[in-house]
Order: sequence, then C-alpha cells, then structure tokens
Amino acid sequence: MPKQVDHEHRRLEIVAALWRIAGERGLEAVSLSEVATEAGISKGLVQHYFPTKDAMLRHATMALRDRVGERMPAPGDLRSTLVALLPLSPRARADALVANAFLIRARRDPQLAEIFRRGHTMLRAAVADLVRAAQLAGDLPSALDPASAADLLLALVHGLGEAILLEHHAPDEAIAILDRQLGLLAGR
Amino acid sequence: MPKQVDHEHRRLEIVAALWRIAGERGLEAVSLSEVATEAGISKGLVQHYFPTKDAMLRHATMALRDRVGERMPAPGDLRSTLVALLPLSPRARADALVANAFLIRARRDPQLAEIFRRGHTMLRAAVADLVRAAQLAGDLPSALDPASAADLLLALVHGLGEAILLEHHAPDEAIAILDRQLGLLAGR
Repeated sequence: MPKQVDHEHRRLEIVAALWRIAGERGLEAVSLSEVATEAGISKGLVQHYFPTKDAMLRHATMALRDRVGERMPAPGDLRSTLVALLPLSPRARADALVANAFLIRARRDPQLAEIFRRGHTMLRAAVADLVRAAQLAGDLPSALDPASAADLLLALVHGLGEAILLEHHAPDEAIAILDRQLGLLAGR
Repeated sequence: MPKQVDHEHRRLEIVAALWRIAGERGLEAVSLSEVATEAGISKGLVQHYFPTKDAMLRHATMALRDRVGERMPAPGDLRSTLVALLPLSPRARADALVANAFLIRARRDPQLAEIFRRGHTMLRAAVADLVRAAQLAGDLPSALDPASAADLLLALVHGLGEAILLEHHAPDEAIAILDRQLGLLAGR
C-alpha cells in the first residue's frame, strides 16, 4: 500500500488539536505531548512538523487568521461582516478563545505579535472599505472618517466578543448593542 | 522577637506574585511552586494560605476587582472613569493582562465566573449612574438609555484595552476613539 501523507493536512490536524486544548483549557495546557495525545499521533510526529511549541503556536496563529477570513461573508455588507466577527457559532467561539489565549504570549513573542498585527491591519482595511461602501449607498453619513469608524467598530466587536465569552451578554444582546452603534454612526 | 504575621498582608503578597507571573507569562506559568519562588517564600507557606491553585486564583480575582475599583476616580465623571479602565499605567496593564489570562479559566470555573459577573454588574451600574449624571448636567441627551449606553461604552473600553495590550493602538489613539464615541452619544 502506497503511503500518501498530505503534509498540509497533517499540519492542520495538529493545529486543530492545539485549538481544542487551548480553547478548553487555555495555552497553559498546550504542550507537544498533549497535542500529540489529542491528535492521536506520536509526539515524534508532532515534532517532525513543529520542532517547538513556539513554531506550533505561530502556525496556529496564521491558520486562525485564515479561518477568520474564511468566515467573512462575501460580498458582505458592514453589519454582516461585524456580526461574523462575534463568537456566535461554536467554531467562532473556539477561535475567539484561542485568540484570547494567545494575547499574553504575543506580548513576549515579536513574530507572533507581528502575525496578529498584520491580521488586524487587513481586517481594519476591510471594515473601512465596507464603511465607504455604506457611505456610497447612503447608509452612513459621508462626513464619517472610514478608518476611524473601522477602529471604533472593531474595538466594540472585540469587547462584545469578550462579553459573550464571559456570558456578560447573550448573543442577541451583543448584536443589539452593535446595531445601536451602527445607528449612532448613521446619525439615527 | 515576637513574630507578628499579618495574614491579609501575606495573602496580598502571594497574590501580587501570582499577578506578576500571570501578567508576564500567562496563567500557564502559574503554579504553587512558581508563586512561592516569585514571592520568596516556601511552597508550604503558599499552601497554608491557598491549598490549591484554584483557591489562589479565586482570591486573586476578588483582589483584582478591588484594585480596579480603587483605580476609579472619585467622585469622577464618565470620561475619566472610562479612561481609568484602559490599561494605560503599568499597574492597569498588569491588571488587564491578568483579567485576560483568567477568561478561559472562568469558562470552566463557575465560582470564578460568578466573581467576574458580579464585578461586571457593579461596573455597569456605576457607569450607568455616570451616564445619568452626564444627562442631568446636559452633556448627554436625555433620550439615551443609561444602561444601554453603559453596555456600549464598557464593551468599547474592553475592546480598546485589548487593542492597547496588542499594540494595535497607542494609548492616545485609544483615548481619541473613546472621545469620538462620547461625542457620538452626545450627538456631536
């Protein structure tokens, strides 16, 4: 039997195992052996793909960015894009927990911080574009600065995401708060 | 020499050591022995005050809430209170990092979650009161619902706090975004 190993698939499996652990127990519980057990493979095989925990975390961060990107509606309007950033589905919730777990580590790991920063820059540009589109459609006043509005909305969405994870707000309450903000920006 | 041990002081020292570790390396690095080393005392003494890591974390969470409360300006207006919630000083930054580190754990520990929830409820009520005061002073429109405005502002402040920690925004940018939001609520 020919053995066809799809390396990218194997990497994704390992990263998925890391995510499950990080989302449930935090990065404190992530180690090469724990990930190997969770993925049902040997520690040696994990190390073949990721020699260190740091290498594994960096790959996981890039994959996380791709996942968030995939979840964005296309073509997508401003509101649906912002709602898609909230941790409402189990998948989005897992992503948000993992992103949260990475925050402290990103402060000590410049490469990891850079991946986060690039992700944020892309997201900010995408949301600013959607603000411009809403302005052209007459849904938002033209006096609004798109980049500023994007900063405001993204900070709000991240704060709401945290509030959902901590169950300070139910999902529908969080969406209502977001809608109120869009109404404020629209001058309603 | 009479030995006067101030138990509350000792507990605070242990919690401060826990904070330093959690803020720098995340909860993944917190253990009874690590905290003992950081506090410069024996592991046995740490265990005398906190038999388990969970007990230590719960005490640390309550102390965190007290610290945030102490940082609030008194009497304080809405803006200065919200600014005081941003991680701008080293102390506030440490608190925010610790709170962040606790998020995942709070999802698995109902007692910890309850401490967070009570803290959030108190904060929400305090901010809603400040919104009411701003309405009476004519700084915010009376049509605004104080509780809704408080939810919106707290979510924004938490999101901005995360953005400061990840260095997506410099402190002055974050304050400018908050001021924009207060302007929006004021109908400016």
